[in-house]
Amino acid sequence: MTGRPGTLYLVPNTLDFGIAAADAPALLTDTLPLQGLHIAARLAHWVAENAKSTRAFLKRVDQVVPLAQPLQQIVIEELPRPPKGARVAAPPDLRRCLAPALAGHDLGLISEAGLPAVADPGAALVEAAHAASIPVVALPGPSALLLALAASGLNGQSFAFVGYLPVEAAARDTRIRELEATSRRLGQTQLFIETPYRNPALLAALTAQLKGDTRLSVSCALATPEAFTRSDSAAGWRQTPTVLPADRPAVFALLAR
Amino acid sequence: MTGRPGTLYLVPNTLDFGIAAADAPALLTDTLPLQGLHIAARLAHWVAENAKSTRAFLKRVDQVVPLAQPLQQIVIEELPRPPKGARVAAPPDLRRCLAPALAGHDLGLISEAGLPAVADPGAALVEAAHAASIPVVALPGPSALLLALAASGLNGQSFAFVGYLPVEAAARDTRIRELEATSRRLGQTQLFIETPYRNPALLAALTAQLKGDTRLSVSCALATPEAFTRSDSAAGWRQTPTVLPADRPAVFALLAR
Repeated sequence: MTGRPGTLYLVPNTLDFGIAAADAPALLTDTLPLQGLHIAARLAHWVAENAKSTRAFLKRVDQVVPLAQPLQQIVIEELPRPPKGARVAAPPDLRRCLAPALAGHDLGLISEAGLPAVADPGAALVEAAHAASIPVVALPGPSALLLALAASGLNGQSFAFVGYLPVEAAARDTRIRELEATSRRLGQTQLFIETPYRNPALLAALTAQLKGDTRLSVSCALATPEAFTRSDSAAGWRQTPTVLPADRPAVFALLAR
Repeated sequence: MTGRPGTLYLVPNTLDFGIAAADAPALLTDTLPLQGLHIAARLAHWVAENAKSTRAFLKRVDQVVPLAQPLQQIVIEELPRPPKGARVAAPPDLRRCLAPALAGHDLGLISEAGLPAVADPGAALVEAAHAASIPVVALPGPSALLLALAASGLNGQSFAFVGYLPVEAAARDTRIRELEATSRRLGQTQLFIETPYRNPALLAALTAQLKGDTRLSVSCALATPEAFTRSDSAAGWRQTPTVLPADRPAVFALLAR
């Protein structure tokens, strides 16, 4: 390394997965603070989950804050995918991603939605940056998980995010009862997510498995004009079912009493 | 109730606790998306942790988006404080707070920093709103907890926020070892916070108690110009101590291997 390293900026993305691209400028500034957009507009080096959608994001940014260099000159390195079963990519790949920062350039990390390195890949890159003494700055931006938690009215003083539930029905039902028991024991809200097309099946399983007085909150399409949150007892969900869209991301939260 | 209720908007606040008031307009738009500022500027009814700091927030908003009515005409109801030992305020108090929404007016809920109802009071009001069929909309904004998690490079696919640790030294050390064991068992990052003046004592206890290869990340003054994150092994913290400021909020995260 020669001289001071650049900074690794964790750049928040919108929560709409680029769906509302027609309203791009409004939705961008409605969802993301200006600081992140100004920094994003001047970065020439990026690490991303997906280069194509990052270019689409940068086109949206350009409508609000003109990019400091033409899009074609911006280098976007995709995060190495960990081999099946491994939690992190091999270190040499991460060092390649960090090369611009080691050479003194500021570097952006962005994910497909929300904050990078939360509920998505990227954490290993941030860890590698710390190990290489590259300063890490998380730019303020929204997280669907915490918006869903706030909107749920469930316990926000103690909560856990546990990722995805098993796909197979019996294993999923077991996991639901396990999360309910953990929630009751610790008084801890349990948050989890699902691939959108499985939202209706997961809701059906939750409605069937949870005890009547367990609270269940579902937030859908957060920070978009179609956003909604329903927070009710499992008994209430059973009595008045809600049909969830199978094409929008949802966050599920439960709290057992 | 006559006619449709208003909406309960969960309005994010900055993360600086009003400290950087001199740079108010820049810091506001650097940290908060415009949508929330536009909605905040038109609300005439609020529920808040603290009326005085909410008026200061609205003065900052007014510099970016002029308020729809004079500040003196805006009604700010303080969240009822739960009696010592009780988690939630008595329901009648919450109904009084929700009265404007039941009468058809939009209502804002705001906390001292970040997202309302996360790591602060307010969740009981949101729950009461759902029970009264008042629509709840969480406006996008930053959470210091998740910015700290992103910046830590620790596991962002599974994490828990556990609030405050005990103040008394022996109980605190026991709790630290308990969190380390939970983290190892579940592969789950454990996040917690402390009153700023106790930051140095908590860091000293963590450095002393954690196993050498447990990762410890501390983020301080996030989303302000003085923000920093140090993420290192406990052994690394022991070898090269960092002096934490005792007047800025910090978020602590640990992950045991």
